[in-house]
Amino acid sequence: MENPLVDILYTQNWDSSTKFSIKVTKPLHSEVTPYQRIDFFDSETYGRFFTLDGLMMVTQKDEFAYHDMITHVPMATNPDIKRVLIIGGGDGGTSREICRYKHIESVDLVEIDERVMQLCQEYLPQTAGHIAKEPRLHLHFEDGLNYVKNKPDASFDLILVDSTDPIGSGEGLFTTEFYRQCFRVLSDDGILINQHESPYYQFHVKEMRKAHRKIKDVFPIVRVYQYNIATYPSGHWLFGFASKKYDPVRDHQVERWEAFGLKTMYYNSQIHEGAFALPTFVNEMLAGTDPNTLPIFPHKDYVE
Amino acid sequence: MENPLVDILYTQNWDSSTKFSIKVTKPLHSEVTPYQRIDFFDSETYGRFFTLDGLMMVTQKDEFAYHDMITHVPMATNPDIKRVLIIGGGDGGTSREICRYKHIESVDLVEIDERVMQLCQEYLPQTAGHIAKEPRLHLHFEDGLNYVKNKPDASFDLILVDSTDPIGSGEGLFTTEFYRQCFRVLSDDGILINQHESPYYQFHVKEMRKAHRKIKDVFPIVRVYQYNIATYPSGHWLFGFASKKYDPVRDHQVERWEAFGLKTMYYNSQIHEGAFALPTFVNEMLAGTDPNTLPIFPHKDYVE
Repeated sequence: MENPLVDILYTQNWDSSTKFSIKVTKPLHSEVTPYQRIDFFDSETYGRFFTLDGLMMVTQKDEFAYHDMITHVPMATNPDIKRVLIIGGGDGGTSREICRYKHIESVDLVEIDERVMQLCQEYLPQTAGHIAKEPRLHLHFEDGLNYVKNKPDASFDLILVDSTDPIGSGEGLFTTEFYRQCFRVLSDDGILINQHESPYYQFHVKEMRKAHRKIKDVFPIVRVYQYNIATYPSGHWLFGFASKKYDPVRDHQVERWEAFGLKTMYYNSQIHEGAFALPTFVNEMLAGTDPNTLPIFPHKDYVE
Repeated sequence: MENPLVDILYTQNWDSSTKFSIKVTKPLHSEVTPYQRIDFFDSETYGRFFTLDGLMMVTQKDEFAYHDMITHVPMATNPDIKRVLIIGGGDGGTSREICRYKHIESVDLVEIDERVMQLCQEYLPQTAGHIAKEPRLHLHFEDGLNYVKNKPDASFDLILVDSTDPIGSGEGLFTTEFYRQCFRVLSDDGILINQHESPYYQFHVKEMRKAHRKIKDVFPIVRVYQYNIATYPSGHWLFGFASKKYDPVRDHQVERWEAFGLKTMYYNSQIHEGAFALPTFVNEMLAGTDPNTLPIFPHKDYVE
């Protein structure tokens, strides 16, 4: 758009009274699949970005924060992980990061909507460029819950749930049944990382707490860690870390991870541990001792 | 506004292609002082909020994050702090938090624009309600740089620079001369905390790096810590910690701080240390080894 009289805005309503808008330099592609609507846009600040059912998924500017934090935290907790399952993640960013570990033997990626991956291969080589060239990567275009149901026990050392919010096609990935199946197909060393929503706006808080309660019913060790990503609602997002025996802070393998020699833009050995230190209101939301949402007047009870 | 056909939006351009908008339920007050424009609004999600020259300052929903992190980090590093200087902070939130420590002897608050404080006392009792009742609080309505220039050496144990961005009336608070004067009026135990901008959008990155370089020229110990505040651009914000002898992590006084028995919504002893673990790209920006802004294609150099 060179016309100074015209702006094309992509706008996500972060909640009923909050709008986040990006000036679009060029709408690139838009289609409706059996699963969802997919859109690609170009912008100045964020480079290229894509949305599913209108919700922001990946921008070129800040995808590294999400993909670093979903992969390197478990890999630095158990550097012997060899068999990885990615549920969702059709943009390829998560498998790109995991495939940087030369010792990983196989990565199964289960994406319900093949068109997401095809379009990311066409429009987002930054995240999807490795897919066609990576022999360890095995693609499965089916429902994630169905896929894990049909796998034998202890098939994987790591499951990364790289999903949308628990609405539409991502909903089954936030159920107790799904977490139970994940537990079963994980080895005794197994770790599950899942997209754990955000502690700021009411919708995300509600889903965060629901997902957290369900995972705690299934896994003996459950921790939550945070990262910043400005293009997701509030910019303050969480991953869940669930495992059968490893604690991500107690069992943090600093030297072994540093020996991999990976250059990362967000993750490092300090933030690995720092990210598990959550603000008090987040701890209280996760523990379920506070009201459903962050109170508007947090100080009224205790300021003298 | 009860009319479904009408929205009143407060919109801040976070950068040239990013807009953050809040639906306003009621514009409350707007005036232009000799220093700036001041506006107060009501909203559903954020409660009441106010802006200076249009930029977001305080919302009822999330001000606790900023005010917790600017005050409790230094107080838990040196719990013997007794004489505090606040530069800016006319909304009262910082002095509210600092005055929760019973052993603090005096708090000098230097706000250039008396109207900010008067209006916050009228419209934002959540942050300004204590001001009229607090005998240890001494108000000075003048320029912050002038104020410190005229104070004797070693007058304070802690300086909190609770400023706007380095444009307009806040500009003098981001100069080497200001940091030198702060160093002089601090005791040997002295700590300076300053609003350190944000590592995401180009304008803030530039100012963050300029301020950081200047402080490093003046203080022997300089650290940076992060916190989340969704209503500031990108949601990812920083404070600078500068001191003559204390390191906030090495000298963290967990037990002494816990003994104060303060209930906080954001700060806790874990996040005190976790907040100093910064993402790699922030470390690189602060060290000055990266280009001026976060690259759009962070992976192009090192993805295999």
